Formats: sequence, C-alpha cells, structure tokens
Amino acid sequence: MATVDFWFDYSSPYAYLGATQIEAVAARAGGDVRWRPMLLGGVFKAIGTPNVPLMLAGQAKQQHYGKDMLRWAAWWEVPFAWPTRFPMNTIKALRVTLVSPDPAKFIHRAFKAYWVEDQDLANANVLATLLSDIGQDPALVAETENPTVKERLIAETNEAVRLGVFGAPTSVVDGELFWGQDRLGFVERALQGWKPKTA
Amino acid sequence: MATVDFWFDYSSPYAYLGATQIEAVAARAGGDVRWRPMLLGGVFKAIGTPNVPLMLAGQAKQQHYGKDMLRWAAWWEVPFAWPTRFPMNTIKALRVTLVSPDPAKFIHRAFKAYWVEDQDLANANVLATLLSDIGQDPALVAETENPTVKERLIAETNEAVRLGVFGAPTSVVDGELFWGQDRLGFVERALQGWKPKTA
Repeated sequence: MATVDFWFDYSSPYAYLGATQIEAVAARAGGDVRWRPMLLGGVFKAIGTPNVPLMLAGQAKQQHYGKDMLRWAAWWEVPFAWPTRFPMNTIKALRVTLVSPDPAKFIHRAFKAYWVEDQDLANANVLATLLSDIGQDPALVAETENPTVKERLIAETNEAVRLGVFGAPTSVVDGELFWGQDRLGFVERALQGWKPKTA
Repeated sequence: MATVDFWFDYSSPYAYLGATQIEAVAARAGGDVRWRPMLLGGVFKAIGTPNVPLMLAGQAKQQHYGKDMLRWAAWWEVPFAWPTRFPMNTIKALRVTLVSPDPAKFIHRAFKAYWVEDQDLANANVLATLLSDIGQDPALVAETENPTVKERLIAETNEAVRLGVFGAPTSVVDGELFWGQDRLGFVERALQGWKPKTA
C-alpha cells in the first residue's frame, strides 16, 4: 500500500487546510497517511529561511494570501478563522503529538483549536483540555518536558531537513516531495504511481 | 458572459503553463478570456519586489520549483523545457502583442518559442519570424519602437499594479484576483459566480 508522509506544524495555516484533506486524498488513491510533526521554525533555521516568510511578503501578496486561505476553506467547505495570536509557539503541541496514543485524533483537534477556535496552543492547560476533549489522558502534557520526547522532535525536524523539506505542509510519496495544500492533486496521483519526469 | 482577464508576461514559466489552459478553463465555465500583457519587471519595480523573486528563493525551494514546473507540464500534457536564457527581456515581445491583429495567436506562439523551443524573445528577427509563422505581418516588429505602443505597455503595466497584481499569471474575474496557474480551479468556479467570503 502506498503511503504519504504528511509533514506539518500547527503554526502553518496551509498545513491546517491540507490536514483537513490528506486522509481523503490517500483514501481515494488506496493509500494511507503517516503524520510527521516537525518544528517548522527549526527547519527554517536549519536552511537559512527568514522566520515566518509569510510575514515578509509584500503587502499585495500578503493580502492575497489572506484571501487565498479563505478561498481554500470555502473550496473544501471547512471552517477557518485567522487567529489573534500569530505566529504561535507550537513546540509543546508537537511534543504531545509524538506521545499521543492516537496522533491523528490529536492532530485534528489541535489544528482546529488554533485555526478555527483561536485557542493558545502554547498553553499547557489548553493542551490538557484538548487531550480530554478526545478522550486521551491530559497528564500526557507532562511528557512535553521529557528530554527523550524533546530529542524525538529535534530528530524528526532534522529528518525533514534531510529530506529537503522547506515549508509546510509537505507531502512525501516514494521519495518525491510535494509542497503545499495546493499540490494534493499531484499527491493523489503520485500515490497511484504517477512519476512525471522532473529532471 | 463572464470574462477572465489573464495578466501575463512571457518571462514567467507559470504564466506559460497557465496560458496553455486558460481558454479551456473559460470555455468550461461558459466565459471568455481577455489577454492582458504586462511588463512583470515593471510591476515588481513599482511594488518594491526584488526582481526575479524565483532566483532569490533558497536552494531547496528553487529545486522544488524546477520539479514543480515539470509536474504541471506533465499534469496538463504540455511541453516544457527550461530555457538557456533566463531571465528574458520580453519588452519587445509584449509590445508586438499589443499591435498583433490576433493577439491570442501570437501569445501562444511566443510562449512556445521561449518555454519549449528556447528561442530568444529579445531578438527582433526572432519576433518577425514568429509573426510569419502564424501568418501575421513580420513588419509589425517595427511597431516596438513606436512611442504610442511603448506608452500603451506602460499604461497596461500601471493598470496591473493599480488592480493589485504582484505576480504572473494573475487571473481577474469580477474584480477578484487569482494568482497562479495553480488557482485555475478557483478561476473556473469564479467565472460561474463563485464568491467565497474573503474578509
């Protein structure tokens, strides 16, 4: 069965939008999803991208992105609301993801908390409540201070960099990287064996 | 009948890719295309974007764009070959477009010359041959030195800036801007009256 590795960080609006679709994309192609949390700020730092590139775009482009996100939300009929806190420190939420017994469930809950409900993902109490919401142990939040968990997130982020990831979301199918929620059509076909010549 | 204004410059690979599709997109939606040449470098200058933003992207991103273009070409089954000359001075080709008796025909010919056949669009002789190729008068090339034609291209470029254009291709439907060949799905629906809330 073909697999798509879906690299994401809660800090990215486009990762949220892509996360609402990736399972359906994989299902249509008869494949499955492997959720890959990474610290996007760590990726940017490693490859020398200015932090939060979205905020460095010119005014016309920035305004367009704002509209563009709402269009994708309308296109896919999913809720979306620009949060009052941006950028967001997502490091704790990413660590919780790594220890969750059912990561997909937590991932959807956390994305929604930030990109629909305007919740503060940097707040440990908020994360505990999100875990409770989905029937998982709120005490898992304590694991965010576990050095092994911290190391795992660093290792995952390094792995993303090694693969050539430079933004979120990035879908990887059979070693090929597809950047963006706007390339899921390519991802679906890649899961079915599409291999266009790209060199 | 709904109309899409398709703003382009021959210098943009994504404008070429979009140009291969825009007429089919409009036809499916029962609309039509108005071709809008602009000098992209002039737009960048006016809004303070560094020239040729593609070349300023980090290495990972740049490599990804190279692949991405070939994937779009494969996706749409159109030829594509990165030219030996990039960036290209397209000002003469844009001026010829403004005086061509059948601009759509010249536009497709010129895009193909640069993005498939690796021809030099800055060369007046090349432009004359392209006009001959499509049964138009090669003497039209002389119009590229006509001050009125020069002024028209400046006026068109200023109009693009006034509308908020910041890249190519940009499709405008009923005052709404859609940037990119990867938003033609939105354009098709907009031509059919789609108006998602974006504020």
